[in-house]
Amino acid sequence: MSIENMRVAILGAGPSGLAQLRAFDAARRAGQAVPKVVCYEKQSDLGGMWNYTWRTGLDAYGEPVHGSMYRYLWSNGPKECLEFSDYSFEEHFGLPIASYPPRAVLRDYIMGRIEKSGLRKQIQFLHSVQWVEYDENSKKFSVTVRDMKQDRMFTEQFDWVVVATGHFSTPNVPYFEGVENFPGRVLHAHDFRDACEFTDKNVLIVGSSYSAEDIGTQCYKYGAKSITFSYRSAPMGLKWPAAFSEKPLLKRVDGNTAYFKDGSSTEVDAIVLCTGYQHHFPFLPNDLTLRTHNRLYPANLYKGIFWMDNPHLVYLGMQDQYYTFNMFDAQAWYARDVILGNLPLPNKEAMRQDSQRWLSKEEATTCPEEDIDFQAAYIRDLLKPTDYPNFHVEGMATLFKEWKHDKQEDILGYRNRSYRSTMTGTMAPPHHTPWMEAMDDTLEAFLAREPELAEA
Amino acid sequence: MSIENMRVAILGAGPSGLAQLRAFDAARRAGQAVPKVVCYEKQSDLGGMWNYTWRTGLDAYGEPVHGSMYRYLWSNGPKECLEFSDYSFEEHFGLPIASYPPRAVLRDYIMGRIEKSGLRKQIQFLHSVQWVEYDENSKKFSVTVRDMKQDRMFTEQFDWVVVATGHFSTPNVPYFEGVENFPGRVLHAHDFRDACEFTDKNVLIVGSSYSAEDIGTQCYKYGAKSITFSYRSAPMGLKWPAAFSEKPLLKRVDGNTAYFKDGSSTEVDAIVLCTGYQHHFPFLPNDLTLRTHNRLYPANLYKGIFWMDNPHLVYLGMQDQYYTFNMFDAQAWYARDVILGNLPLPNKEAMRQDSQRWLSKEEATTCPEEDIDFQAAYIRDLLKPTDYPNFHVEGMATLFKEWKHDKQEDILGYRNRSYRSTMTGTMAPPHHTPWMEAMDDTLEAFLAREPELAEA
Repeated sequence: MSIENMRVAILGAGPSGLAQLRAFDAARRAGQAVPKVVCYEKQSDLGGMWNYTWRTGLDAYGEPVHGSMYRYLWSNGPKECLEFSDYSFEEHFGLPIASYPPRAVLRDYIMGRIEKSGLRKQIQFLHSVQWVEYDENSKKFSVTVRDMKQDRMFTEQFDWVVVATGHFSTPNVPYFEGVENFPGRVLHAHDFRDACEFTDKNVLIVGSSYSAEDIGTQCYKYGAKSITFSYRSAPMGLKWPAAFSEKPLLKRVDGNTAYFKDGSSTEVDAIVLCTGYQHHFPFLPNDLTLRTHNRLYPANLYKGIFWMDNPHLVYLGMQDQYYTFNMFDAQAWYARDVILGNLPLPNKEAMRQDSQRWLSKEEATTCPEEDIDFQAAYIRDLLKPTDYPNFHVEGMATLFKEWKHDKQEDILGYRNRSYRSTMTGTMAPPHHTPWMEAMDDTLEAFLAREPELAEA
Repeated sequence: MSIENMRVAILGAGPSGLAQLRAFDAARRAGQAVPKVVCYEKQSDLGGMWNYTWRTGLDAYGEPVHGSMYRYLWSNGPKECLEFSDYSFEEHFGLPIASYPPRAVLRDYIMGRIEKSGLRKQIQFLHSVQWVEYDENSKKFSVTVRDMKQDRMFTEQFDWVVVATGHFSTPNVPYFEGVENFPGRVLHAHDFRDACEFTDKNVLIVGSSYSAEDIGTQCYKYGAKSITFSYRSAPMGLKWPAAFSEKPLLKRVDGNTAYFKDGSSTEVDAIVLCTGYQHHFPFLPNDLTLRTHNRLYPANLYKGIFWMDNPHLVYLGMQDQYYTFNMFDAQAWYARDVILGNLPLPNKEAMRQDSQRWLSKEEATTCPEEDIDFQAAYIRDLLKPTDYPNFHVEGMATLFKEWKHDKQEDILGYRNRSYRSTMTGTMAPPHHTPWMEAMDDTLEAFLAREPELAEA
């Protein structure tokens, strides 16, 4: 089949799906023949998780809300670690900016280039993929899509399907004894939106990973009375102010009292379950479904991308992530080159062996620093054979380690630190207001050189 | 095909699905040949909406939570209006009980009989129906089901499909200007669980139907500072205490201030959208999907049950409801008799004409009293040709009108009234505690003869 007659479906227009669109667009601009690409997006706009919504639960059309983004979120890692290799923050904003931008600023950066590119017209918004099937005879995928606005289903045929639906949308919500009788709100981090709801409250946060740490500090910033973290295996071990405490796993709830594994208890007004997310693909049949926990190298994916039992099914961004946007780019460029026939897919046994080597390496890591190096090596492996603009993968790894250290030192203050861009060499200016005092998180306020300007 | 070789799928094990199971079981006990019946239920137990869950949004397996039930709910209509015709409340509880029972008591009544019947083993719990297709050649439905616990899909063939998935699960959530910047919780009634969350808060309730009225009064009962209702077309016009007010439609939100259509405004801490539900069947293809608003006689359903374009697809309980459990029974018995071949299905034109007569009658009603009479006549029409135990449809209509009047008189006190069972003739005893003071809504407390006993 000629490349022009091939059809590729991309499921999702978040950072990963957009990376795939940009990868094909780059090839087209370079004069290569490209397939017909259609991107189906459930939301009304692009940006995936970065597309903040006030909605929780089900959306206006009865589909599960994709977003887990909360209102006052600021990046919890330096922007220098998520810079695209072909488009710096400095180029986008026309000036150097501080290292930890709020949500609106990051969204502007991710989306800015897409708006200029004309790629938007390849995206069918408010289109939710309901079902994918593969026909062995025709070697085609049937993709059944719901046009949500019209509430009509239709089915189209594709040669490749790229799953870019993310894995931070379907909450993992364990049960704790007595939680059904707790007199107050119980929610998963997925449904957390506005910290002001918890002003003056004693908040119990179950979990000890990124969501727990960040939602806890945000509630404190917006006036929560106390924050109690409950961990399964180990405390975060950060230097918390007096309003915070760390407890072992929640055992049960009785009225407003939470009881922990060590026999201690505390009175709480709200419970936020920061208990992680599930990889969830209800639109895929059994034999095409990736089943994995959140890890750096999910099994059964060649190069972390191709479903080994049917490599015309591509998964992007399904890894646990230090690197984000630029890793998705590396994956998308590699996937594109395979789809275009520029890169070969080895036979199944060779794929299995390659994957096994990575899995063994992942299992041998023993600390976050080694995890960062593992992911850097993985990205380097993807970049080698593609024409994706070379970027300082290992330089970013160094920044990630610096960030880990800074956070460990000062959990409420690390966002005031600055890092040097590996792209432009520019050192980020400090932000005009310490994060704990920066209550205006609009793009305008963040970009203003002085807080006075922001308020003008 | 012989009856014994026929296969019927029931989707949902709530009041409607259970009615269908009971209908077939009654035929079997009467010595009739019955088809093989399989009931798929997404939840882990039977009871549909009456199966309270503390969860909101997505469940433990990533499926949308079915329940819209809230924790301290008491029946908002007399139990005498929802009595099964072959099983009275008095028979179930062994004594007469007050007219407005709390959630746990009603659930016990609905489920009690099922537990004794052995019907539970016909229900596959934690099985969510993903997709239904009809094949014109084989005249069979293919039903694709997700075994949620195993996260595996499978497909089975059926001759009939009974959709009993309810229509109070998929919220209708309109957008109001500025709501994305409201500093507090915004939720739909579907996600309302525990009124204690709103103690001491000023609560805005958008809507003027049953959910609005009941969630508003419940928040007040549990200590909310004020309740502001916002209506689209007309105020409820009830006699509200001073803490309540009624405003025209919400126009926009700015910070904590809600602005209404008449230019007035008020400060609020939380917004509850009691804006109704959608009929939502994402598992059905276009040509089998019922599309309707909430009305007494949805179009395209013969006898309010059979999908006229393919009457082997049956919808139960899709009407707006005064009558509930006993109407579902009447529908299930009629559907059963058609499936068993005891009742004929007329040709399409005759079905269309019958349906048109009912639609015209529905459109001619002008007040709730006429609506009640309309639904009574509809149920009477279903009962006539079946062997469902005759019940006092019109006697219940009189009770419904009495209830409407009592509620109009005293919105915070109507639940203290008593009504006479049309089944047993017994007048309900008054409850031992006025509803506004009855904070213990357990089955034990409700059934105790004196509050002292309840506390013992």
